[in-house]
Amino acid sequence: MNIYDVAELAGVSIATVSRVLNDSPNVAEKTKQRVREVMEEHSYVPSGFSRGLGLNALKTIGLICPDAADDYMAKAVAYLEHSLRDYGYDCILCCSGYAYEDCQIAVSALLRRRVDALVLIGSVYADDDPDSEQVNYIREAARQTPVFLINGYVRGENIYCAVCDDYDASYSAVKEMLAAGRRKILFLTDVHTVSTNLKRKGCEAALAEEGLALQGDLNVGLSNQINQTRDYLLKLRGLDVDGIFAANDALAAGALKYAKRRGLAVPGDLTIIGYNNSELSVCCDPELSTIDGRESRLCQIAIDSIKLCLSGRAASARVFAKGYLIRRGTTEF
Amino acid sequence: MNIYDVAELAGVSIATVSRVLNDSPNVAEKTKQRVREVMEEHSYVPSGFSRGLGLNALKTIGLICPDAADDYMAKAVAYLEHSLRDYGYDCILCCSGYAYEDCQIAVSALLRRRVDALVLIGSVYADDDPDSEQVNYIREAARQTPVFLINGYVRGENIYCAVCDDYDASYSAVKEMLAAGRRKILFLTDVHTVSTNLKRKGCEAALAEEGLALQGDLNVGLSNQINQTRDYLLKLRGLDVDGIFAANDALAAGALKYAKRRGLAVPGDLTIIGYNNSELSVCCDPELSTIDGRESRLCQIAIDSIKLCLSGRAASARVFAKGYLIRRGTTEF
Repeated sequence: MNIYDVAELAGVSIATVSRVLNDSPNVAEKTKQRVREVMEEHSYVPSGFSRGLGLNALKTIGLICPDAADDYMAKAVAYLEHSLRDYGYDCILCCSGYAYEDCQIAVSALLRRRVDALVLIGSVYADDDPDSEQVNYIREAARQTPVFLINGYVRGENIYCAVCDDYDASYSAVKEMLAAGRRKILFLTDVHTVSTNLKRKGCEAALAEEGLALQGDLNVGLSNQINQTRDYLLKLRGLDVDGIFAANDALAAGALKYAKRRGLAVPGDLTIIGYNNSELSVCCDPELSTIDGRESRLCQIAIDSIKLCLSGRAASARVFAKGYLIRRGTTEF
Repeated sequence: MNIYDVAELAGVSIATVSRVLNDSPNVAEKTKQRVREVMEEHSYVPSGFSRGLGLNALKTIGLICPDAADDYMAKAVAYLEHSLRDYGYDCILCCSGYAYEDCQIAVSALLRRRVDALVLIGSVYADDDPDSEQVNYIREAARQTPVFLINGYVRGENIYCAVCDDYDASYSAVKEMLAAGRRKILFLTDVHTVSTNLKRKGCEAALAEEGLALQGDLNVGLSNQINQTRDYLLKLRGLDVDGIFAANDALAAGALKYAKRRGLAVPGDLTIIGYNNSELSVCCDPELSTIDGRESRLCQIAIDSIKLCLSGRAASARVFAKGYLIRRGTTEF
């Protein structure tokens, strides 16, 4: 039951519902009554957004991500903002970049605003070791306000993490590549984070079981435009691979363009797997096989945890979501 | 000159510079002195972000867009947030959706936070007529705080608009399609906004000069996933066009997939032009010809106007940026 349902059932606009919630004098008494009856009948609890100019204002949650223009993070920001507004909270957004010190500064900047919670989007805020001292700045922040991580795990009081099992998802996908006869697999990334490390380790574990190693662990750099990835691969001398596992879909799309330029059949000569199931993956021809990193699920887990914490109940320190391969045109299995 | 330059010149981390700005006791006096000398030498004025835990806090700007997951808006949000933080302002983000009343509610919600300025991203907040009463809610907001529009024009006191000349850019592109022999041109959109109306009207004006009309003005709807656009076009009976002008790149990518499924050569049998020069446009094969809507330029114009306004100087009510066609593989000209 949300404001749209109330508006529809009462036969008024949502602006009118909002005005009723605020007891505005600009709504006829009869209309007010009708709207209130609908609300009571359906036990409707108004959210901050629906209140519009409402009463219990100034509840704020800080959202921090490295780059709000990145497809994965943009979707997470939109999901979180929408859900949190529905729950009555405004969101302050802070794009920190990827540098460790900038991440610290971003957290400090939002603590200064006395936010009711902090949500950190992306594994760049975590460390490979959940007990690492590197992330003490997050533990310190958690002394002031609850901290929620999307796809990162930091162990500590008042810290709640939703993580995709990137290791397992990558391991399983590479097992399938190997079963399909691939032997020379390249790992492609654009930044080293906890998440990309897990993806790489998952690949390595699957290869190790066959006595194989990665053909390379290439970091194309954060200028990961599709054509830059293509050109980067074209410039490598003697690149001889039959499988590419990319840490995101833009990198995989670049790998596909590399294959076309080289005259390699995909997936005949070269299997390609991307990550994130973004719009790019269906834009490619053939469409990219890609791992769904379960971003919406991670966001929903964080929202659920936030609601528990902010209403004084217990939330889980870590909840997993299972990533899985979406089979499209760049794999034969 | 920014905090990174200061850090580099002083040979310290930016966290240290931030601590010096806050006169933290955790920095050696000698280091403090070196950092301060660099700042003075280069007349460095610290920003809110660089202050981190600094003093003149709580300066806030409201960013409103229909959907922060949309590629165009995500880039604008990232650009604006970064520049505004550098200028010392935190950003509250509000994703309003496209419905008129939701736009009103979003503006009200941020006014309640007493933001120092409002930035509205996307022409959905404007009206075809800059004097329309439909957008009186923006004029009312502008009585409380300056309002900046990205790609929308509303006439009123304290309202500052940065707009791309979508009409001219579309007109010119279709003139070229006509010069290349195209006659049956379809317009494809996913939502009706001021901007998409201007694009359509630009197309119509170019066609009218040759005594032609659009073959159709199709609204695929906001579920504008690439494959949904393809399927929408495949289902149309008797679709016979030799040019498609799409209001964004996802729609154009869908049109390209339609052409492939139908066995049409692109651009031989069908010319396709997208809009926004997004990552999708280089992911397509052939790469999409697309109009650069000058989004970063519009954001920079808004930032410049905000700086003028918030420092008590005069800004322009409307500044144009010129859009232009980027010629790639889906056009022959």
